[in-house]
Amino acid sequence: MAISRILIANRGEIALRIHRAAHEMGIETVAVHSTADADAMHVRLADHAVCIGPPAASESYLNHAAIISAAEITGADAIHPGYGFLSENAKFADIVEAHDIKWIGPKPEHIRTMGDKVQAKKTAGALGLPLVPGSDGAVSDFDEMREVAAEIGYPVLAKAASGGGGRGMKVIPSEDQLETLVKQAQNEAMAAFGDDTMYLEKYLGNPRHIEFQVFGDGRGNAIHLGERDCSLQRRHQKVFEEAPSPVISQEDRMRMGGIVADAMATMEYRGAGTIEFLWEDGKFYFIEMNTRLQVEHPVTEAITGMDLVREQIRIADGKDLSVKQEDIVFSGHAIECRINAEDPFTFAPSPGKIEYYHQAGGMHVRVDSGLYAGYTIPPYYDSMIAKLIVYGRTREGCLMRLRRALEEMVIQGVKTSIPLHQELLKQPDVLSGDYTIKWLEEWLAERAKAENAASES
Amino acid sequence: MAISRILIANRGEIALRIHRAAHEMGIETVAVHSTADADAMHVRLADHAVCIGPPAASESYLNHAAIISAAEITGADAIHPGYGFLSENAKFADIVEAHDIKWIGPKPEHIRTMGDKVQAKKTAGALGLPLVPGSDGAVSDFDEMREVAAEIGYPVLAKAASGGGGRGMKVIPSEDQLETLVKQAQNEAMAAFGDDTMYLEKYLGNPRHIEFQVFGDGRGNAIHLGERDCSLQRRHQKVFEEAPSPVISQEDRMRMGGIVADAMATMEYRGAGTIEFLWEDGKFYFIEMNTRLQVEHPVTEAITGMDLVREQIRIADGKDLSVKQEDIVFSGHAIECRINAEDPFTFAPSPGKIEYYHQAGGMHVRVDSGLYAGYTIPPYYDSMIAKLIVYGRTREGCLMRLRRALEEMVIQGVKTSIPLHQELLKQPDVLSGDYTIKWLEEWLAERAKAENAASES
Repeated sequence: MAISRILIANRGEIALRIHRAAHEMGIETVAVHSTADADAMHVRLADHAVCIGPPAASESYLNHAAIISAAEITGADAIHPGYGFLSENAKFADIVEAHDIKWIGPKPEHIRTMGDKVQAKKTAGALGLPLVPGSDGAVSDFDEMREVAAEIGYPVLAKAASGGGGRGMKVIPSEDQLETLVKQAQNEAMAAFGDDTMYLEKYLGNPRHIEFQVFGDGRGNAIHLGERDCSLQRRHQKVFEEAPSPVISQEDRMRMGGIVADAMATMEYRGAGTIEFLWEDGKFYFIEMNTRLQVEHPVTEAITGMDLVREQIRIADGKDLSVKQEDIVFSGHAIECRINAEDPFTFAPSPGKIEYYHQAGGMHVRVDSGLYAGYTIPPYYDSMIAKLIVYGRTREGCLMRLRRALEEMVIQGVKTSIPLHQELLKQPDVLSGDYTIKWLEEWLAERAKAENAASES
Repeated sequence: MAISRILIANRGEIALRIHRAAHEMGIETVAVHSTADADAMHVRLADHAVCIGPPAASESYLNHAAIISAAEITGADAIHPGYGFLSENAKFADIVEAHDIKWIGPKPEHIRTMGDKVQAKKTAGALGLPLVPGSDGAVSDFDEMREVAAEIGYPVLAKAASGGGGRGMKVIPSEDQLETLVKQAQNEAMAAFGDDTMYLEKYLGNPRHIEFQVFGDGRGNAIHLGERDCSLQRRHQKVFEEAPSPVISQEDRMRMGGIVADAMATMEYRGAGTIEFLWEDGKFYFIEMNTRLQVEHPVTEAITGMDLVREQIRIADGKDLSVKQEDIVFSGHAIECRINAEDPFTFAPSPGKIEYYHQAGGMHVRVDSGLYAGYTIPPYYDSMIAKLIVYGRTREGCLMRLRRALEEMVIQGVKTSIPLHQELLKQPDVLSGDYTIKWLEEWLAERAKAENAASES
């Protein structure tokens, strides 16, 4: 039986995104929502809506029993978990499948494997993905350390096996400083964790975040849809994402894309996934795999013309991938700005009532948002309230269009990150694409310093 | 000197459209507006704004002197006329160029030629465009008429040379009825116009409206961007437009496109133009050429990825065409719905205050509109208030996406044609693309009849 009614186990813009894809396929939707989200747009637009609990996500959006009950009551034959919440919860995926409901996501075993950091790295390594080179376990004497470090190449990172939070960790710039710095790290580690076991790995001083979108049919066929560059981050939260990356050549795209697609084919991966890498000096280093749709998937949609949620639904329904690798054409450039309800520079959350809302419009401008005038953003959930996605034939044209789209966007009643994006678009490094994962935090720190200096003078 | 500041001699969505393209090119904009449009969105967004007169278009948007003055006062170095108003006014184009201001439009001589119906047909014929076959002037005796009609092929249309409004016009289905019907037409014509001179032409009983988008650089290079099907019309007003046409093969597209592009190259045509044809039984018949941008240009933008207003500006600036014919790829399907402030079925205008406005969003949905909540639609101008343009890989996918986008669109405070479009999307003929220029009026008439019958019973 083909999927005819999808329960959307999420909220906000991604719930609306899924609703849209479903309706465009002639599939009905079931919204589930907490009491705080009764007035959400996707709830209003869905064919059916079920309240599944109080505002606390643990009692609503994470409540397995309530969601499964809602699916059974409404006769939903598939569940799409979106991102966050239950999307990478293998146990929930198991329960869904045990109830004969289609899980619009990867096989639970793959969610489990990739959700465990150690297992994920082992699997990635075994599948041929490039890892951060390291000592492959503990190293105890300095001679061995010198040997390993020489092989990895300086600078290397000495890390306590029991470490965390940066303690028991030192960057070693060259061999002559190895012994001194490792001893310091060991002392720190012993003091903090009672264990001075150390290992070494390559130190990536200033990498970019590059991730590949993949799709598998679960039966050994897989494709990649190129990369996204999500290096502009604050506290590991992506702020601004683009595709293609300004630094990845078509040759590297197809080479690394081929490697990840082959890995997914070997795994018999099913559905959408993202393989995240750090990238420095032309080399990729695997960090993790997200076994779900990403927030930033629309930039990939813009440059490939593919609807990724539709593809997910097709695959969950047992269909083949809709395209072959050789038919995928990467064309133009796309950028997504995440618009959050928060102070644009202090990042203090700013929930509340939307007094006025005006979307940007026109050619190649896409807005994914559940906002509407009169809507009240509840304080309980993520602060992201809209995604502005802009496409252009060239990166420069895309940036120009993004600037004018931001000029048109009006959100009144709460503070938003629109002014942050507008200021980012004036920075030469952003305009030239010359940024790494450290850039945004450094720029914000400098900006704050300059503002403080200005207010003191 | 490159264009650096464009005066937009128009209002509504097209003024905003031009503003957007200009800003995306780093060009400043000057809005001119009547007193009725002081609060219009494009006026708010433009870099400069000049009030050029009272609401009556004759005293504002058609006021040559006021517009030229506004350009001089603000230092605008180019004028974009949009569509309607002064866009096909050769005299105004002359004045603009005489003031050393760049005219973002065709050469005045071409506006003049194509604006004159007789001249336009002569020119089109000389350039090799297919015309409606006819008697090539008056025919007076029945023997000649029979000869001409036999050559054209029945049915033929007998038309009074001085005629108009359908008077003195008869469809002649076959030779045996020729004499009787022509005599009737002559009697009508004599009574109405005091002149019974007749001519004959091929009768197109139920054609489609197919138009080709062209661009020329003014120096003998020209391209076509394929066709648009605008057959869904009411009183010659287009309601729903799509590209590509559901009935034109790629072979016919490239063959007729080649003919029109060659014609434009021969003319040394400059800028954007549209060659309109009637199409029946696989054959094209030239009707007219519009020497300007069309309302429905976004469907062409959607399937080619080209920004037509940017292209117009480039050409007015003396640049070459941005693409070669062989590089233009037609991909996917696009549909535009014109959303008017009017009763969806009686078509009575419905100006007034927009109490609430919510745009559709998401993937491949474009809205071109100057609407915003709180805006008051003035009663003086055209009733079109928004264009919803949707793209899909296939026509079917595009129709599905259009349906869901219409579900999301909210305009409160005035009546709009959204319900008309929603009902059209349920009609099997619209879904299959099986409609001609008569379809919409016939359907509306039947619908009205059914409604009357229902209200009487």
